[in-house]
Amino acid sequence: MSILITNATILPCTAEMPVIDSGYVHVEGDTIKALGAGPAPEIVGAEIIDAGGDLVMPGMVNPHCHMAMTLFRGLGEDVDDRLFRYMLPLERKFMRPEPVRAGTALAALEMIEGGVTTVADMYYFETEVGRVADAAGMRGVIGQTIANFDPPDHKSFDEGFALTEQLVAEFAAHDRIIPSIAPHAPYSTGMETLARIARWADDHPNVPVQLHLAETDDELRWAATSHGMRPVEVVEKAGLLRERLICAHCLHVDEADIERMANARVGVAHNARSNGKAGRGIAPVEAMRKAGIPVGISTDGAMSGNTLDLFSQFGPVSMFQKLLGRSRKPMPAVEVVRMATIEGAKVLGLDAKVGSLEPGKKADLIRVELTSPRQQPIYDIYSTLVFATMPTDVRDVMVAGQWLMRGREVLSLERKKVLRDALQVAQSFKAEMARIDAAG
Amino acid sequence: MSILITNATILPCTAEMPVIDSGYVHVEGDTIKALGAGPAPEIVGAEIIDAGGDLVMPGMVNPHCHMAMTLFRGLGEDVDDRLFRYMLPLERKFMRPEPVRAGTALAALEMIEGGVTTVADMYYFETEVGRVADAAGMRGVIGQTIANFDPPDHKSFDEGFALTEQLVAEFAAHDRIIPSIAPHAPYSTGMETLARIARWADDHPNVPVQLHLAETDDELRWAATSHGMRPVEVVEKAGLLRERLICAHCLHVDEADIERMANARVGVAHNARSNGKAGRGIAPVEAMRKAGIPVGISTDGAMSGNTLDLFSQFGPVSMFQKLLGRSRKPMPAVEVVRMATIEGAKVLGLDAKVGSLEPGKKADLIRVELTSPRQQPIYDIYSTLVFATMPTDVRDVMVAGQWLMRGREVLSLERKKVLRDALQVAQSFKAEMARIDAAG
Repeated sequence: MSILITNATILPCTAEMPVIDSGYVHVEGDTIKALGAGPAPEIVGAEIIDAGGDLVMPGMVNPHCHMAMTLFRGLGEDVDDRLFRYMLPLERKFMRPEPVRAGTALAALEMIEGGVTTVADMYYFETEVGRVADAAGMRGVIGQTIANFDPPDHKSFDEGFALTEQLVAEFAAHDRIIPSIAPHAPYSTGMETLARIARWADDHPNVPVQLHLAETDDELRWAATSHGMRPVEVVEKAGLLRERLICAHCLHVDEADIERMANARVGVAHNARSNGKAGRGIAPVEAMRKAGIPVGISTDGAMSGNTLDLFSQFGPVSMFQKLLGRSRKPMPAVEVVRMATIEGAKVLGLDAKVGSLEPGKKADLIRVELTSPRQQPIYDIYSTLVFATMPTDVRDVMVAGQWLMRGREVLSLERKKVLRDALQVAQSFKAEMARIDAAG
Repeated sequence: MSILITNATILPCTAEMPVIDSGYVHVEGDTIKALGAGPAPEIVGAEIIDAGGDLVMPGMVNPHCHMAMTLFRGLGEDVDDRLFRYMLPLERKFMRPEPVRAGTALAALEMIEGGVTTVADMYYFETEVGRVADAAGMRGVIGQTIANFDPPDHKSFDEGFALTEQLVAEFAAHDRIIPSIAPHAPYSTGMETLARIARWADDHPNVPVQLHLAETDDELRWAATSHGMRPVEVVEKAGLLRERLICAHCLHVDEADIERMANARVGVAHNARSNGKAGRGIAPVEAMRKAGIPVGISTDGAMSGNTLDLFSQFGPVSMFQKLLGRSRKPMPAVEVVRMATIEGAKVLGLDAKVGSLEPGKKADLIRVELTSPRQQPIYDIYSTLVFATMPTDVRDVMVAGQWLMRGREVLSLERKKVLRDALQVAQSFKAEMARIDAAG
């Protein structure tokens, strides 16, 4: 199978972040065979797709999500105690394999429609999440959460490890679905279990580790009170601060933390909208990147950031750093696009495989329309992409040479069934919330 | 002409911000005749439109824009000295009636597509702006800028006043286009001219006054150095702080300033994205609203905020206040929608006419689809609207009973011609920028 996309504006997202004003991409099987400026060479037997000047760029990488939590989108919005009042009780009562599949499918549908091709997920029943993401055709780092707060799928750390082993067994040899272990956060696992996960990870060098880190004021207090340390130090002392550790949030990191993280070669998933909506603060993204830490742009779950496309994050990502720096200069648009593609892939340890358009890499790419009045005129394509393009401008999505969406029609999921299944779970949630509210 | 919209989720945006889960809106001529819950009454001869559960709400109000500056969208993005390097030279060289019409038409097209029905504009050649906005079917407060920095349409304040008189003469009796006078800012007009404008405004009680106020650090320094005052005090001393003064930005206002503004009954246009992108800071919107100042949500020009729909502003508007308050609670979604509708109308002095759906008000309304996977499930319609809805979800737009857009097709502007005209001007800009860059 050979596909030749011609007449495209191409952003390869390689180191120099070049722009190819008019060029072609040649996909052979699941791989990018060639790309370049000018008219395409003749490829015998290739299907030719004239992009009509549309943008072709790498599929976006979302390095931190809780896909199934689309079911909680906007639930208890602006209610300060929504976590304890609604979310944890609803999770404990309802989250079983079937609802997890329903929420994950809704997330996959939304992400594909918005141009995300790779996602790192942390939740429960992750074998189910992996299966749904696989069936949707996405690429994923699928992390089984381990936590001490009586989550819906494990009563003990041992049970959490057992679920992880099962996940690893099922997807160890999978090309697109990469199993991962996800200690929820330092405070919700503790030093001892973090150390156990570190030893487990030593024995599983291909399994990335994900956790929430330095996200809340409470976490700072917990680390100070119980260990006389900062959260990053707790993770370091447990032996877990390492390459292929995916650290979500990292709002409360000081200069010394950043140096530790950079030396350990961790990656960071930056959740601008989630952090902003919770009023938690602004992560020092410029400082982390300056220290050499790769930082990707992520959505968090829909209960926090509401949408799962990266376009919705671009404005906040850029504005937050400009506000921190009190200038128009920090975090220029081109850097935002770099973070959304190759740098996000690096956070997940997948940068040799995806995140840029280069011969030999997997053919994960998207086609984006630039014809809306809102996007015109175009002086700088990166500015257009970051500040004036919407997820609805994504027209086609390809992962590993397979079209997941064409002409805005998702091919790998049954849209109606996905929506119906999710809304059915939401009905149960609403009934239970009414019961909670009636009980006071 | 009678139109009956049935089977709609209705947000009337009246004081209590109610939600009508399934209801009807009856439009007669240019006016809302009735609306309510449940099945519609029979209206003989009415055209019946089944909204299929879509949302119907007031058209949004954008109380601060420079429409023609769509031509500068993304130009010199992230370049700190772009104003002096590119924008002012380009404005002086190219901005004449024809390019102003082209840029304004592009803005009108984008705003209609994004659900904005009323705009307050400040720029040059405003008689042309008023004509284009009128032909597009929009409602507008059209402000002739007066400034001392050699703008493209007047060499002196006297010439600026003459242009304003001409604007007022043309639109004094117009139902949708309201002429306005727009001193650019305190520092760019000066105390004496502000006082002259105050006297002129005394003689023209129906003409609203617009200005940029308390936007930059330089402005604070200017007011301190030249008058030993804060910018708000300068405007007060000039006699211009008054009802129907539309103050854009108001980033640098302290408690005393806010009290002055509240007592004088001014309105504020909050430009979250513009302020954030410039790294200027966060306006104290919660404090201003608590003091009783109406605050609308505005886009500023596309050279600052890039897009001209209010959905793009909603996230920043809400997140910025939550970040200031370090909590999830400030600026809840329902308040964001209030600001985008009835409160924005109040800022412009148009709240008796538009901004909410009520019998007797002008029929300015939009129909918004809620069917995207990104918008589902819906627990709180205001959350859905603020955090998960895009301008591309707006399906139909009506102003004064006239459809400006149906099924996403704008009826009042020729889309292809509008884009062609704007891109032609952009070509001239690009050539001149290349010349500027070559000259060093």
